[in-house]
Amino acid sequence: MTSASTAPADVPADFKSMLADIGTAMNAELDRLLPAVPGPENRVVEAMRYAALDGGKRLRPFLLCASADLFGVPRARALRAAAAIEMVHCYSLVHDDLPAMDDDDLRRGRPTVHKKFDEATAILAGDALLTEAFTVLADPATHPDGAVRAKLVAELAAASGAKGMVGGQMIDLLAGGLSLDQGGLTRLQNMKTGCLIAASCRLGAILGDAGDRDCDALAAYGIAMGLAFQIADDVLDVESSAAVTGKATGKDAAAGKATFVSRLGLEGAKTYARELAETAARHLAIFGERAGVLRQAAFFAVERRS
Amino acid sequence: MTSASTAPADVPADFKSMLADIGTAMNAELDRLLPAVPGPENRVVEAMRYAALDGGKRLRPFLLCASADLFGVPRARALRAAAAIEMVHCYSLVHDDLPAMDDDDLRRGRPTVHKKFDEATAILAGDALLTEAFTVLADPATHPDGAVRAKLVAELAAASGAKGMVGGQMIDLLAGGLSLDQGGLTRLQNMKTGCLIAASCRLGAILGDAGDRDCDALAAYGIAMGLAFQIADDVLDVESSAAVTGKATGKDAAAGKATFVSRLGLEGAKTYARELAETAARHLAIFGERAGVLRQAAFFAVERRS
Repeated sequence: MTSASTAPADVPADFKSMLADIGTAMNAELDRLLPAVPGPENRVVEAMRYAALDGGKRLRPFLLCASADLFGVPRARALRAAAAIEMVHCYSLVHDDLPAMDDDDLRRGRPTVHKKFDEATAILAGDALLTEAFTVLADPATHPDGAVRAKLVAELAAASGAKGMVGGQMIDLLAGGLSLDQGGLTRLQNMKTGCLIAASCRLGAILGDAGDRDCDALAAYGIAMGLAFQIADDVLDVESSAAVTGKATGKDAAAGKATFVSRLGLEGAKTYARELAETAARHLAIFGERAGVLRQAAFFAVERRS
Repeated sequence: MTSASTAPADVPADFKSMLADIGTAMNAELDRLLPAVPGPENRVVEAMRYAALDGGKRLRPFLLCASADLFGVPRARALRAAAAIEMVHCYSLVHDDLPAMDDDDLRRGRPTVHKKFDEATAILAGDALLTEAFTVLADPATHPDGAVRAKLVAELAAASGAKGMVGGQMIDLLAGGLSLDQGGLTRLQNMKTGCLIAASCRLGAILGDAGDRDCDALAAYGIAMGLAFQIADDVLDVESSAAVTGKATGKDAAAGKATFVSRLGLEGAKTYARELAETAARHLAIFGERAGVLRQAAFFAVERRS
């Protein structure tokens, strides 16, 4: 089940080419899973497509597919589960961007959904993307075994709800008034983004009927790499602001929120992110050489420029 | 499987007493399923509890349990699935009440969630209730067979998404500008409320491993009784406004939206609602006397005063 020979032969060993391939495949999958509907309600589908088909790094789909590859999962099944994860990720961005939340007008250089459509449509498009994710996971096309499908649903829901992503966003909204220390910041980030990143890895393993030890190793990898990714974001936020404005302050600092940079300093944050990437890579040891692209992904998380 | 002897002995034959019993049991179940969490994110759990534990008719849980009773489903399982349906119903109310949507300050005589907490918390509480519904359905405590759990998830998601409840709310928001005829209004109401009411019946049947014929009969009953319920709402909206203001105009009419009353007239709407209740009852014929409480529920839908 976990021998190298079961990995699909056409999986590129290089992280960046695999990330690009998954990005292309993910757009095609989401396009297929979100067809237009007849009637005026198609407006919400248009907003769902606008939110989900706009690209992004597709990090979660990559992690799901790369984890699934360790267990020889057919790529078509992995892409369905990856589409479900990406729908949840995109719904969270649509709702987080709303005026009542982070109030962002732009995302990836384009108007946010509530700017392109309107607030009501944005709320509904987020709701429907979250709902559709579970439709996709519960469909026999994702896995023939109902118990596996139910487990996929349970994992994604647990990572996304009040004990995971939504709880993290709640803390983040309150964070200006909470003066979080490093432990509090870590808990916030693990909930807000780490849980869903870890779930991406777990879903790939569940599709491959992996044992608990493999599932847990991949989830631990996901938590460490997710935190590394987030700290790198804090660093980029400061360094890109510094480049543009000449001041070492970014958006989060301006909002009065604690960040890993404000807690650890710029160099301290960079060092911590690299340590986390190494921790993430160590969790992959039980998979040997086969986990090469996942190992590269952990270091990409902290070395990227955007 | 469908013989009368398998119905639990302690199910009251009287609709109103069963509705009251389910209401009490539902509150206890939701209280158990939505425990407080440690940390500042408990704010979103408080908002979820505020939204879900505030009563209401509990029509959907009643329909699920009464349908499940036809197939001898243990009440504990039915109540779990009913809690999931009710979480989805309550999430939809929280989001529909938001300023960007219907902008309501009061629901059932209490401040709406965004008034009691704030808009961001209300958006997140709705998101988390929707997510938690799938956690509940996917849990082995709801049914030991994973294929049944996955089917419950698929049915609830299909009824709640862009092709169901969310699509209906999208049409409703656009409805002022759509000048819907009776067919358009029927489609809107079937999507906005009928789908989830029909799903309540279907989930009860799925828990009981019912055949397609029984499932479809219950779903058809649910669609007809849901529409009857909605038309009765339109009638009550006008008659209570007339009693208070002396004018035969209610909130929907004031908002420029077509209603069944504006399309059929007051008496025409009442007649149509009664016909639909009779249609609903006819769909229950294959269950004979055992469906007595469901039959009573259809007539309650059109004869109630609030």
